[in-house]
Amino acid sequence: MNFERVALIGLGLIGSSLGHVIHQKKLAKSVVGYARSKATRARALEIGFIDEVTADASACAKEADLIVLCTPVGIIGDIVKEIAPSLKPGSVVTDVGSVKSAIVEQSLPHMPDGVFLVPGHPIAGTEQSGPDSGFAELFENRWCILTPVPDAQSEEYQTAVSRLTAFWEACGSRVDVMDPKHHDLVLAITSHVPHLIAYNIVGTAADLERVAQAEVIKYSASGFRDFTRIAASDPTMWRDVFLNNKDAVLEMLGRFVEDLSALQRAIRWDDGEALFDLFTRTRQIRRSIVEAGQDTAEPDFGRHSTPPKEKS
Amino acid sequence: MNFERVALIGLGLIGSSLGHVIHQKKLAKSVVGYARSKATRARALEIGFIDEVTADASACAKEADLIVLCTPVGIIGDIVKEIAPSLKPGSVVTDVGSVKSAIVEQSLPHMPDGVFLVPGHPIAGTEQSGPDSGFAELFENRWCILTPVPDAQSEEYQTAVSRLTAFWEACGSRVDVMDPKHHDLVLAITSHVPHLIAYNIVGTAADLERVAQAEVIKYSASGFRDFTRIAASDPTMWRDVFLNNKDAVLEMLGRFVEDLSALQRAIRWDDGEALFDLFTRTRQIRRSIVEAGQDTAEPDFGRHSTPPKEKS
Repeated sequence: MNFERVALIGLGLIGSSLGHVIHQKKLAKSVVGYARSKATRARALEIGFIDEVTADASACAKEADLIVLCTPVGIIGDIVKEIAPSLKPGSVVTDVGSVKSAIVEQSLPHMPDGVFLVPGHPIAGTEQSGPDSGFAELFENRWCILTPVPDAQSEEYQTAVSRLTAFWEACGSRVDVMDPKHHDLVLAITSHVPHLIAYNIVGTAADLERVAQAEVIKYSASGFRDFTRIAASDPTMWRDVFLNNKDAVLEMLGRFVEDLSALQRAIRWDDGEALFDLFTRTRQIRRSIVEAGQDTAEPDFGRHSTPPKEKS
Repeated sequence: MNFERVALIGLGLIGSSLGHVIHQKKLAKSVVGYARSKATRARALEIGFIDEVTADASACAKEADLIVLCTPVGIIGDIVKEIAPSLKPGSVVTDVGSVKSAIVEQSLPHMPDGVFLVPGHPIAGTEQSGPDSGFAELFENRWCILTPVPDAQSEEYQTAVSRLTAFWEACGSRVDVMDPKHHDLVLAITSHVPHLIAYNIVGTAADLERVAQAEVIKYSASGFRDFTRIAASDPTMWRDVFLNNKDAVLEMLGRFVEDLSALQRAIRWDDGEALFDLFTRTRQIRRSIVEAGQDTAEPDFGRHSTPPKEKS
């Protein structure tokens, strides 16, 4: 057991999943949770993935050895500022946000001496949100990236990184350490831009005049529906991601658009060879992802068709 | 039984799935298959989803009551021209291609009198291809769109449409009838542009200098991997789709890019409200697709994490 008492600040998908896995694998003596919404607090206690709940973030963090910030990225800075005076010397503060440089910038200045900020990002999630969406296996076999803050080379800091690494490994994850800026670039292409274009095409499809929305829904099995899963992700979380990783997202989006223009031109000028070459190359990437255990090899993700819901 | 003898021209994902479902539900007395490749022909017989196989498309079509063209769109015109002289009066010729106007243009001029061309498109598939990829349940609860040819209002033609409708319904599908041009527009947004942007982002990610391909693969669970599934689809099939539905694809792609520019601008100018509004609207579309039975409601498509393949 690396941490006796864990504080979960925010009880959505990641917070609740952490609560479940900590209990299931007995990774702490007690888990205390904070959520802004009364309904979420009540539900979290009812489900039982935390032992105590509070509406006061400082009180939640106060006695904890590990504080995990599981709120949308946009409010992490404010919460850190709020809880900072209550933090116990020797405690480790981490987060699960999808951007890292902004978190470091917004949080590090508030950190008291003797408390260790080790930002983190478990590469795991689903399109669902809220305290009911969590499950203990969420982190199983997924990568978790830790981004130690610059100039934190002390032995005690390294110990904090090791303790947090051991914690995530106990949750089932594999852990990598990376520079925050590089993390933001990697995630811009593997996560942020994919989400942006998924949101975008679903929006485009909804706004057409010549194709009805009902048609888009009926015939979505032809490719579109895969995008709608991603485009059903939490709006607040994703708004904050884009606002807080602006430079890397715009850089990667620029590359995407440039490549898309080339494809557009290939279609316009009947350049079948260019299309065929790209479509062949992309198959190999898929194979590598399946081989790396990051996706299932089952066709169609192993989905089976489901009958339409009866109108009640 | 609507058709005594069915000819499957092309034995890939759709052809093999049709063979399986026809046998399983006893929808024909015999199924004969054509494939260009010797290996595919041998494999099809071995799996047993056809009763006879031939390397001669005309011989395959000759005695059939229903001829289903299951080849890539790009060669359908040539095959129709080749088999046309052998077609039996009263037989129905259909196809399963993802574009319809080009099929009508390329095929209708070759049709002999008394043979009925009823183009079709089952909205079903996986990212897999070849004779091993088929399964009988592929069409279950999926839409199949028939696009009767213009000026084919005779009673006999309508009977051919009804027979083909009954056939697809027996395969498990729900059938819609649509104008070919409208089909191409609907599929451009629900299928062709989604595939294009999936291929595109996978290509972009593979070509980056500042992010290694190994990183893209490791951290793909953050969104990217969903796109790689679609971008693993058959290259020949998709090249032909884009070359044969150029106008509709370019129109829809234009809309997509226009909307993407607006999002890009919202990020650059910190317009969180615009982002939040879009991200909220898109959730509803997802719900409608799940309610319509066109996707599973299980988080993450019900995928479970899989351990990485051991290096051997």
